[in-house]
Amino acid sequence: MKPRESGQSDGRSGTGGQGGDLPKGSAPERRELDRRSFLARGVSLATFGTTAFLYRTAGAADSEKTTDPMRVPGAPPRPYGERSPFEKQARKGRTEPSSSHGKDVTVADPFISLTPLQDLHGVVTPSSLHFERHHNGVPAIDPARHRLVIHGLVDRPLIFTVEELKRLPSVSRLTFIECSGNTWLGWQDAQDLTVQDTHGLTSTSEWTGVKLSTLLDAVGARRDATWMLAEGSDAAGLDRSVPLTDEVLNEALICYGQNGEALRPEQGYPLRLLVPGFEGNINVKWLRRLKLGTAPFMTRWETAKYTDLMPDGKAYQFSLVMEAKSVITAPSGRQQIHPGFREIRGLAWSGRGRVTKVEVSVDGGRTWQEARLQEPVLPKCHSRFRFPWRWQGQEAILQSRCHDETGYVQPSREDLIKVRGTHSIYHYNAVHSWKVERDGKVRNVHV
Amino acid sequence: MKPRESGQSDGRSGTGGQGGDLPKGSAPERRELDRRSFLARGVSLATFGTTAFLYRTAGAADSEKTTDPMRVPGAPPRPYGERSPFEKQARKGRTEPSSSHGKDVTVADPFISLTPLQDLHGVVTPSSLHFERHHNGVPAIDPARHRLVIHGLVDRPLIFTVEELKRLPSVSRLTFIECSGNTWLGWQDAQDLTVQDTHGLTSTSEWTGVKLSTLLDAVGARRDATWMLAEGSDAAGLDRSVPLTDEVLNEALICYGQNGEALRPEQGYPLRLLVPGFEGNINVKWLRRLKLGTAPFMTRWETAKYTDLMPDGKAYQFSLVMEAKSVITAPSGRQQIHPGFREIRGLAWSGRGRVTKVEVSVDGGRTWQEARLQEPVLPKCHSRFRFPWRWQGQEAILQSRCHDETGYVQPSREDLIKVRGTHSIYHYNAVHSWKVERDGKVRNVHV
Repeated sequence: MKPRESGQSDGRSGTGGQGGDLPKGSAPERRELDRRSFLARGVSLATFGTTAFLYRTAGAADSEKTTDPMRVPGAPPRPYGERSPFEKQARKGRTEPSSSHGKDVTVADPFISLTPLQDLHGVVTPSSLHFERHHNGVPAIDPARHRLVIHGLVDRPLIFTVEELKRLPSVSRLTFIECSGNTWLGWQDAQDLTVQDTHGLTSTSEWTGVKLSTLLDAVGARRDATWMLAEGSDAAGLDRSVPLTDEVLNEALICYGQNGEALRPEQGYPLRLLVPGFEGNINVKWLRRLKLGTAPFMTRWETAKYTDLMPDGKAYQFSLVMEAKSVITAPSGRQQIHPGFREIRGLAWSGRGRVTKVEVSVDGGRTWQEARLQEPVLPKCHSRFRFPWRWQGQEAILQSRCHDETGYVQPSREDLIKVRGTHSIYHYNAVHSWKVERDGKVRNVHV
Repeated sequence: MKPRESGQSDGRSGTGGQGGDLPKGSAPERRELDRRSFLARGVSLATFGTTAFLYRTAGAADSEKTTDPMRVPGAPPRPYGERSPFEKQARKGRTEPSSSHGKDVTVADPFISLTPLQDLHGVVTPSSLHFERHHNGVPAIDPARHRLVIHGLVDRPLIFTVEELKRLPSVSRLTFIECSGNTWLGWQDAQDLTVQDTHGLTSTSEWTGVKLSTLLDAVGARRDATWMLAEGSDAAGLDRSVPLTDEVLNEALICYGQNGEALRPEQGYPLRLLVPGFEGNINVKWLRRLKLGTAPFMTRWETAKYTDLMPDGKAYQFSLVMEAKSVITAPSGRQQIHPGFREIRGLAWSGRGRVTKVEVSVDGGRTWQEARLQEPVLPKCHSRFRFPWRWQGQEAILQSRCHDETGYVQPSREDLIKVRGTHSIYHYNAVHSWKVERDGKVRNVHV
C-alpha cells in the first residue's frame, strides 16, 4: 500500500492544522551548533539509494520473514510489562582495585549494588536499577503487619498502619538519594573504572508520602524536641539521628511511593524516611520508629560508621548534607569512542538546593564552557547536563564542575584533599576526570 | 540495645546542625487544615501503650521469629530489581458493558491494556504499568537491525541506525501520552466502572531522544514540506500524518529513552515519535520511516479510524491535540470508603500546555473549591492534584474540573454532548463524576 500524497487540510480549527514553514535556524537552540555539518562529518550515515528498504519484494527469503516484525503479529498485552530482552543494563557489586594482579575485581558485596549511570537517560532512575545499600540484606515485609510508632518527647505517642498513612495529605517530589560513600574510591589512587563503579551510589526517583511535620503535629511534638531517632526494621536495625531543623520539618517525608508505584523492597518497602539532600543512610528504610529527643542519639552508625576522619585525627560527626557534585556519564570510564560528533552527557546535583550551572572542560580544567541544563532544574534532584563535542583523535581530559544556588562550587580533587586529607571514606565530591586516549579508550584518572 | 539519649551536637558547621524549634503551625501549608483534629477523629490510630512492640521478649513464639524481618538476614542485591510480591497492581483489558446480563465484562483485548490509575502515586507512571495500545501486537525488534529512514521533500534522504541517533544532541521531557479513545465509554450510559476502566489510557513518562528538527536539518527538509508521514514497523504498519507546525518542530522528539532506561517494547522499542500534547497514535511507535510532503497523506488510520463523527453526520479529521481533562483517582469507582478524613487525589493534564487550576466539587458541581497542585506543574504533563475531605456518611458526587493556560475549562458532559453529540469514540474530555453512596460504595455516574 503506497501512501497517497493528495489529501485534505486540517478539518478542525485550532487543533494544530497546517501552516508553519520549517524553521530555518532562527530559534536560539537551533544555532547552538551547525547540525548539518556535524551530521555530515560526524555520523556515518547511509544515504538512501534503494526502495527495497521500504517495500520488500514478495519473494523475500524465509529468514527475513521470521525476523521482519512487520510480517508476524506481535505479542499481546501484559499485566505488568518487562523491558526488551535486548536490554541488559544491570546493577553490579563494588569493584575493588587488586594491586597484586594489576586487575580490578568485582566484589559480590551482599549489601551494595551500583546504578549503571553510563546506560541511563534523563534524570529518573528506573526503580529496578536504583542503587542498593543495606546492612543486613533486604527484609521481606508484609505491609499489613507493618507499623510506624512515634514516641519520645510527644504529647500522644501513636502507632500508624501503612493504610492510615496513605489516607493523610500527601506530597510527591523528584529528588536524588546519594550514599555518603559514593565515590569512596576517589580518596585512593585512580583505577581503571566505569562511572558505575565510581559514582553508581546515587539515584533519582519521584517519591510520594506524608510530610513528617503532619505526623509530628498529630503526636503533639514538644517544643524542646530538636532531634529525632529514625529506626528501620531490617535485620541490621539501622537507626540514625536526624536534626529537626526548619529545613527538615519543611521537607522530610515518610514515603510509601516511588516512581508511581509502591516503594521497591530495596528502597524500604513499605515505608522509608526521606530527607531531601541528606546522605543516603539518613533516609531510613523499612521505617518502624521515630523517637523525639533533645540531642543526637549516638547510635553505633554515628560512631563506628558515617563519620569523616580528618587529617588531624579528629572525625566529623553528622556531616549530613550531600554537597554539590557532578560527573560525566558519557563518554566515561572503559568506554570506547570514535572520531566525530558525540554529545557529552552527565548528571549534576546538590543537597543544598538547585544546580545553577555546570561547566565542562575537555582539556583537563585549563578552559571551561557552560553545559546546557535540562529544564526543569529541580532542587536536590539530579540535573541532566549536555555539551556538544567533536572528538578528532587527540588526547583529552573530560571534566565537569557543578555550581549550586548557595554559590558553592564543586572543588578540585587537590582542593578537597587539602582540607579533608585522604583518610575519609565518605563525602568525596571532587571534580572527576576521564582521560580519552588517542585510540579512543576512556580511562578514570586523577589530574 | 537501648538508644542513649545523651550525645554530641553537630560537629560540622553548616551541615544541618541543631537549632530550629518544631514549627507551631506558622507555615501557610500547615494551616491548611486542622491536622490534629482530622487525625484524632479521622484515622483509627492505636495509642502507644506497650513497649512490646519495640523490644520483643526473648521467648517470642517461633511463628513470630519467622515473620519478624529484624530476626532474619534479608535478601542480597539483585542486578535488576522487582516489586514486592505483596504488590499486585496490573494493567487490564477493556471493560464492556454487557446489558443482557446486567454485568460488565472484562474483554481480553489483544491490543489494549489500561493503567491502574487508582493505585498510582505522583505523576510518573511506572513503565511496567504504562497503558498499551497497538493494532497488531507488540513487535520484537532487534535494535541493531532497526533503521529510521527520512525521505520525501528533503535534499538528502538519510538512513539512521539507533546508535547514530543516540550520539546526537538529546532532550528529556516529562510528558503524558493519552490515547484519543481514552474515556470512550463516556459517550455511553454510565456503567459501574473503575477509573482504570474509564481513564486508564493515559500515562506519563520521562522521554529522552533527539529533536525532530535536528534530523530535519540533517536531511535538508524543503521549505514546502508542511506535513510528515510517520510509519511504525509493527505488523499493522500504523502510519499517521503530522503537521509540521512551529509547535511540532519545537517540541517533537524521536525517542529511545523512557523513565531512564530504553523504551519499553509496548512503547515503541527501539524508537518512537513523541509529539507532546497530540493524541496517542500520532506518537508512532517502532518508528521506521518519516516522509515529508505538502499535505496529509490520508492513510487508512485517518479515515477508517481516528476521526470524530459529529451530530450532522460529518467527521472531523486531524483533531490531534488532547484537550484539558482531569479525573479523581481516589476515591474512585468501585472503591469502598469509610467515614473520616481522606485526601481526594487526582490527575489533570492538557495537550495545550500547563494546567493552571483544578477545582473539586463534592456536591455534584453546585460548589467548587480549588485543589492543591503538586509542583512543579509541567506543560503537557500529568499534574497531581489533592484536596482534603472528611466524609461523614452522606451521599456525595465528587468531580474535578481542569483549567489550562489557554483559558480553556474542561466542559461538563452536557456541554460537550451539545456540541459533539454521542456518535464519537474519541476525544471525550468531560468533567467526570463519582457518586459516593451512604454505605461508602463509590460508583461511576453521569450527572
